[in-house]
Amino acid sequence: MKRYTITALVSNKSGVLTRISGLFARRGFNIESLCACTTENEALSRMTIVLNGDEYILAQLTKQLDKLIDVKKIALANEDESIYRELLLVKVSAPAQKRSQIIEIKDVYKAKIVDLSPETLILEITGEPNKLDGFIKVIEPYGILEMARTGTTALSRGEKCLNDLTDYNELI
Amino acid sequence: MKRYTITALVSNKSGVLTRISGLFARRGFNIESLCACTTENEALSRMTIVLNGDEYILAQLTKQLDKLIDVKKIALANEDESIYRELLLVKVSAPAQKRSQIIEIKDVYKAKIVDLSPETLILEITGEPNKLDGFIKVIEPYGILEMARTGTTALSRGEKCLNDLTDYNELI
Repeated sequence: MKRYTITALVSNKSGVLTRISGLFARRGFNIESLCACTTENEALSRMTIVLNGDEYILAQLTKQLDKLIDVKKIALANEDESIYRELLLVKVSAPAQKRSQIIEIKDVYKAKIVDLSPETLILEITGEPNKLDGFIKVIEPYGILEMARTGTTALSRGEKCLNDLTDYNELI
Repeated sequence: MKRYTITALVSNKSGVLTRISGLFARRGFNIESLCACTTENEALSRMTIVLNGDEYILAQLTKQLDKLIDVKKIALANEDESIYRELLLVKVSAPAQKRSQIIEIKDVYKAKIVDLSPETLILEITGEPNKLDGFIKVIEPYGILEMARTGTTALSRGEKCLNDLTDYNELI
C-alpha cells in the first residue's frame, strides 16, 4: 500500500465526478482526498485525487479512467518532480490563558489567525500535506473543535504541463 | 442562479462520494468546486461543495442529501458568518525579461514563487475565491500554462461547529 496522487483534466459538466468516483468505489478504493475545480479553460475541470492502494490495481484503474470520454488527460504525479500543496482551516479551543501558547505554535508554522472569539481561534495554514499533518498533531492537545482541509492539489515542476501530454503518462 | 456553499460531514468510506455526486448529477447541477478530505475524526470526511443553482431546488437537494445514511451533518454556509479559503497553484510563462513584472504582481497579491525554470514560474496564492479570481485575471496576459485550484473550503466563524448541529441547518 502506497500513497498515490492522480491528476486529471476532465470535461466540466454534470455527472463526470460521479462516473470517476464510481470507478474507484467499485474497486473498493477509498479516496483520501479529492479536489475538483474549474481551470483557465472553461470546458475543463482539474481533479487531484490522493489514495492509498496497490500499484497494480491502481495502474489498471488509471488506464480505465483514461478510457472515459470525459477524461481528457490523466497522469500519476511524480513525487520528485511535483509541487504538492494543501490548505487547512482549523478551529481550536483557545480560552485567553491558552491563547499565547497557540500563537507561539502558529508563528513557528507560519500559520495565520483568521478568526478569534473569546473561546476559539481559527488558524489557516498552507503547505505540503506532511507539514499540515505535523501541525495538526501539535495543535491537537489544545482541542480541535473542527477542521476543514482542501485536500492536496499538485503541479509538475518546470515546463511540463498535464495538457501537453499526448496520452496516459507517468508524469503529472 | 446564485452561488451556494454546502458543507457536510460524511462517512469516510468507499462509495460515499459517488452517491453524493450522483444526487447532484441527476438534477443537472454542475459542481463548481468540491473538496473532500479526512478530518480529526478518522470515521468522517468533510466535503465542501460550491455550486450555482436555484434556491428552491437546492433546498430540496440539501434535504435529500441529509437523508443519506452516510451524510452525518450538512449545512449551507452563511456568507457573513463563514471563513472561505482556497489555494491556487498557477504555472505562468515567465522568460527572464518578463519575470520582474510577474514578481511585482506576486508581491501585491502576497503570492509565493514555489518553482522557477528558465521559461516558467509556479506561483502559489491563498485567499478568498474572489481574490484568486482577481489574481488569475491579472496574471492571464502573461500566459497561464496550467493551474490547479483546490476549490473552496469553509468554516463558520466563532464557536459554532458543524458537528454540533442537531440536524439540517442554515448555518455552516
